[in-house]
Amino acid sequence: MNPCASALLTDHYQLTMLQAYHREGLADTASFELFVRKLPPERNFLVAAGLEQVLDFLEGFQFTAEECAYLAGVADFTPEFIDYLAGLRFTGTVEALPEGTVFFQNEPIVRVTAPLPEAQVIETRLINLIQLQTLIASKAARSVLVAPDRWLVDFGLRRAHGAEAGLLAARAAYLAGYGGSSNVLAGKLFGIPCFGTMAHSYIMAHDDEADAFRRFAEALPSNVVLLLDTYDTLAAARKVVDLAPSLAAVGIPIRSVRLDSGDLGALAKAVRAILDQGGLSGCRIFASGDLDEHAIAALLAAGAPIDGFGVGTRLTTSADAPSLNCAYKLQEYAGKPRRKRSEAKATWPGCKQVYRHYDADGRFSHDLIAGAWESASGEPLLRPVMRHGRRLEPPEPLESLRRRARDQLARLPAPLRAIDRPAPYPVTVSDGLKDLAARLDAQG
Amino acid sequence: MNPCASALLTDHYQLTMLQAYHREGLADTASFELFVRKLPPERNFLVAAGLEQVLDFLEGFQFTAEECAYLAGVADFTPEFIDYLAGLRFTGTVEALPEGTVFFQNEPIVRVTAPLPEAQVIETRLINLIQLQTLIASKAARSVLVAPDRWLVDFGLRRAHGAEAGLLAARAAYLAGYGGSSNVLAGKLFGIPCFGTMAHSYIMAHDDEADAFRRFAEALPSNVVLLLDTYDTLAAARKVVDLAPSLAAVGIPIRSVRLDSGDLGALAKAVRAILDQGGLSGCRIFASGDLDEHAIAALLAAGAPIDGFGVGTRLTTSADAPSLNCAYKLQEYAGKPRRKRSEAKATWPGCKQVYRHYDADGRFSHDLIAGAWESASGEPLLRPVMRHGRRLEPPEPLESLRRRARDQLARLPAPLRAIDRPAPYPVTVSDGLKDLAARLDAQG
Repeated sequence: MNPCASALLTDHYQLTMLQAYHREGLADTASFELFVRKLPPERNFLVAAGLEQVLDFLEGFQFTAEECAYLAGVADFTPEFIDYLAGLRFTGTVEALPEGTVFFQNEPIVRVTAPLPEAQVIETRLINLIQLQTLIASKAARSVLVAPDRWLVDFGLRRAHGAEAGLLAARAAYLAGYGGSSNVLAGKLFGIPCFGTMAHSYIMAHDDEADAFRRFAEALPSNVVLLLDTYDTLAAARKVVDLAPSLAAVGIPIRSVRLDSGDLGALAKAVRAILDQGGLSGCRIFASGDLDEHAIAALLAAGAPIDGFGVGTRLTTSADAPSLNCAYKLQEYAGKPRRKRSEAKATWPGCKQVYRHYDADGRFSHDLIAGAWESASGEPLLRPVMRHGRRLEPPEPLESLRRRARDQLARLPAPLRAIDRPAPYPVTVSDGLKDLAARLDAQG
Repeated sequence: MNPCASALLTDHYQLTMLQAYHREGLADTASFELFVRKLPPERNFLVAAGLEQVLDFLEGFQFTAEECAYLAGVADFTPEFIDYLAGLRFTGTVEALPEGTVFFQNEPIVRVTAPLPEAQVIETRLINLIQLQTLIASKAARSVLVAPDRWLVDFGLRRAHGAEAGLLAARAAYLAGYGGSSNVLAGKLFGIPCFGTMAHSYIMAHDDEADAFRRFAEALPSNVVLLLDTYDTLAAARKVVDLAPSLAAVGIPIRSVRLDSGDLGALAKAVRAILDQGGLSGCRIFASGDLDEHAIAALLAAGAPIDGFGVGTRLTTSADAPSLNCAYKLQEYAGKPRRKRSEAKATWPGCKQVYRHYDADGRFSHDLIAGAWESASGEPLLRPVMRHGRRLEPPEPLESLRRRARDQLARLPAPLRAIDRPAPYPVTVSDGLKDLAARLDAQG
């Protein structure tokens, strides 16, 4: 059983609501919007990601016979409702921000318009998929901003929250500008370049470190990356220098060394000196170990001669902001706009569009959230991506999403590029939306 | 394709190392141990979880023909190595802490003994599975400790990091003492009780809130839980009271109401008063919305009359500690103990056992980590669970794991039960291990 594809990957209340909708015959057209209420304090912007997996999910949405048989044994559900579920498919319309688009608080990033039960039942997985990749792409973009000319690699799979988290984090990081991932399955499924070196256990399984280096080089001659910090980093660097001539003699270059512990900045300088003095100025230094954008920025500011960074745990768990305050809310049902008024969780009613404005240099200057029925200036960000439950276009290649993300990051206003200073971005709400909200509130 | 079951869900370096091991003929017996170097500052103890999924993974481990075909196209790998991978299975031995066991820093929780390549190649997924469930079980245990007599339900799926995270978080929370989950698939796969109410969208899809309540009750007569905070919580509570007699007349009780926003403590008191005055003293109050063990403890300390809590995002992402500093390290190879000496990441060499000691009341008093070859007093915690790549026993029922976790939490020393004060637990290392480490260091 592939849990990632199951329609049961949902909250129980979606099904109890569906049974009520079904009994009541509530199947008019509903529009829901997915948005982030408030950016985490550690983020000046977010990068939309995860849409492709959502569209896969919607196109394949159905309860299998086995799943229906299971639900038939759950006390809450009637046989007639289970029959209805067996035939349920997603037949609706989706508008969304293209993946790689930068967005801000309260901006709808996905709008689903479908018969109410269809738009409702997909909520849980839709949020689950969009939140994860948006979290990781937004986190990854920060290290891309501080190290645009370095080689950044996702090393996070082991500390990701399960299989799908590791897989989709690799995709999201690559989308945001990382150069690749250690995740082999992400290489197969998404065509992401895979990188890997060796673990300490490889060195430790040999009685002699220099012997381990030589044997690894002979086994992987086209891609020799040697890990230096199992015992004594500088001693290991000298062993690399000693080893290089005999490997060069048989046509094997030592492409890189990796540092994984200790004072990475100081060690990188010392190792660089040893390698350069040993004639290995072409051998690159790769660093890993508890890194994130702050650590990378500090290393680069200190002039650490590090060519690439492996970023793991803090990227793949978005450690400083491991969730987004995102919501998927009913905006319109049966032609009437709707508004939730819960304390601190009120929403703007009706279907909306986001209009982006640019300054003379092509940078984002401000966004306007307006009713979809209003006309407004600026670039509309939400685009139609699905009609009648089917994609309008084939999946956009990941390389194209990467180009979009790169272009978007280049258009960020300078203050938003800072990783350690909050910088608000102006998002205004149209008068039309404010009027509508006031009118709905007045109706009680 | 089920990504959760793929052998490619690994780091590229596992495969490059395997190619080197294979070429060198390094296939002697290796022992690796998985442990957590340091507890997060927010955790006084951890609860082991995830072993069952690891054993599933090991029993089913293999590279499929399709996966081998993919790897054959990756530049690093030789055809002869791919042939070897195609036949690779896990044939080793596993010792582990039973799920639900409380453990501490540096204590091995899983030991794998197998031919070196087999013990190596499983590293990434082993850490990935154990970390996730241990994180969530350890987080969940904290709300169980502060609210032992309340009804705790995992609501986290939508904010979990992907499908598997949501699924396994539901399992881990239930194991640690939660009463159930909203996750329907977790209900099907693990037999976890499923709970659900209704969303704001259900209310909003109706023109009248009282009408929505009545219709929901008629559709789910055996399990009526009404959400009060879509517009005005107290007004909604009064509508519930007004509705109750006509529902009671047709045999439908209103079992619970749910609060999801605002000052939950004050609202619960006011709602309780309205319900009691309206003759609904049997109707329970359920609360949700940005909850964690701190919020629950504060609500209970303030006397909030809340019978149950839905805990979502902060549980399912372990928001205050979204990762564990865990490692899987080579301890012995070809009969010789091994030790990594990297700065701040040194390990104790050789295969180890954890011995737990108890005080007169049956509470944990201290643990001793000793060499597996030493004899020591106390209860040995690591137990054999797999031989020759096959489980020694059928999977332990989840209810049995829950009983173990409950028993373990009852045996925690009082200071460790605090959720807001760090309390260290004494874990000592045997003289035998210290001597061995010194001897290995002296050998250089």
